[in-house]
Amino acid sequence: MNTWMAAACNEALDAMETNAGGPFGAAIVHNGELIATAHNEVLETNDPTAHAEINAIRKASEKLGTHDLSECILYTTCYPCPMCMGAIFWARIPTVYYASSMEDAAQGGFDDQHFYTMIAHPETAITLNPLDREEGKKLFSRWLEKKDRRLY
Amino acid sequence: MNTWMAAACNEALDAMETNAGGPFGAAIVHNGELIATAHNEVLETNDPTAHAEINAIRKASEKLGTHDLSECILYTTCYPCPMCMGAIFWARIPTVYYASSMEDAAQGGFDDQHFYTMIAHPETAITLNPLDREEGKKLFSRWLEKKDRRLY
Repeated sequence: MNTWMAAACNEALDAMETNAGGPFGAAIVHNGELIATAHNEVLETNDPTAHAEINAIRKASEKLGTHDLSECILYTTCYPCPMCMGAIFWARIPTVYYASSMEDAAQGGFDDQHFYTMIAHPETAITLNPLDREEGKKLFSRWLEKKDRRLY
Repeated sequence: MNTWMAAACNEALDAMETNAGGPFGAAIVHNGELIATAHNEVLETNDPTAHAEINAIRKASEKLGTHDLSECILYTTCYPCPMCMGAIFWARIPTVYYASSMEDAAQGGFDDQHFYTMIAHPETAITLNPLDREEGKKLFSRWLEKKDRRLY
């Protein structure tokens, strides 16, 4: 078994054994060095965003002192859900390895697969309405006028 | 202007003025009471997941002591990116109001719109490969055999 995936699997086992959350673990490698491992902590922390990949990305970015993880590889025990895939995009992680599939997660009772369908048409899945559109546009006008703005 | 959207807008202005991050704010309301406001803190914290909606969801779930925010309404200054939309799904938030659009965000230099295209076919956007598939399946077998497992 791949060494880094084994580190991710050990995290997933930890999550299960401690009832921290679902059977999910992740590991992030930078220049051949393991810099972060994490597991799902949704149940332990009551934080719905505390997935293994999100937790690992937060640890790795703290360790490297940057939100740009474009030189990192992510190993995750399961195909990332839309939230975690989005986090991977924002962190600019170019390479991801996963052990189990969305179908495996669905059999385990998790909604990842369903959420990929929902995210293609969020307006049909939840109530999602515009409000105060002009005020929203003003924010971006102010942003574009801001001389010291930093894009990321 | 809607009171709760105004709270979200004030957060977005805070983010800009303090250089904490992009011009994004969010507010979460539970039973008519404002229980969390937050802004983007990606630049301040180096955490690529520190979007306004994620931060607000984390605060609200901590305050309510549950990962289930199905009785909450989210007000956000901008249409949620795929990461935040996924977080909204996991938090079971049924109703979201947004002020500015993905197109406004794109004009402001942000990748939200592009990421919705990427998330429809993640394998074409990043390197995303299976590895140690059998070990991944074993994790879910162990999960399904676990007598005290809690789904969420």
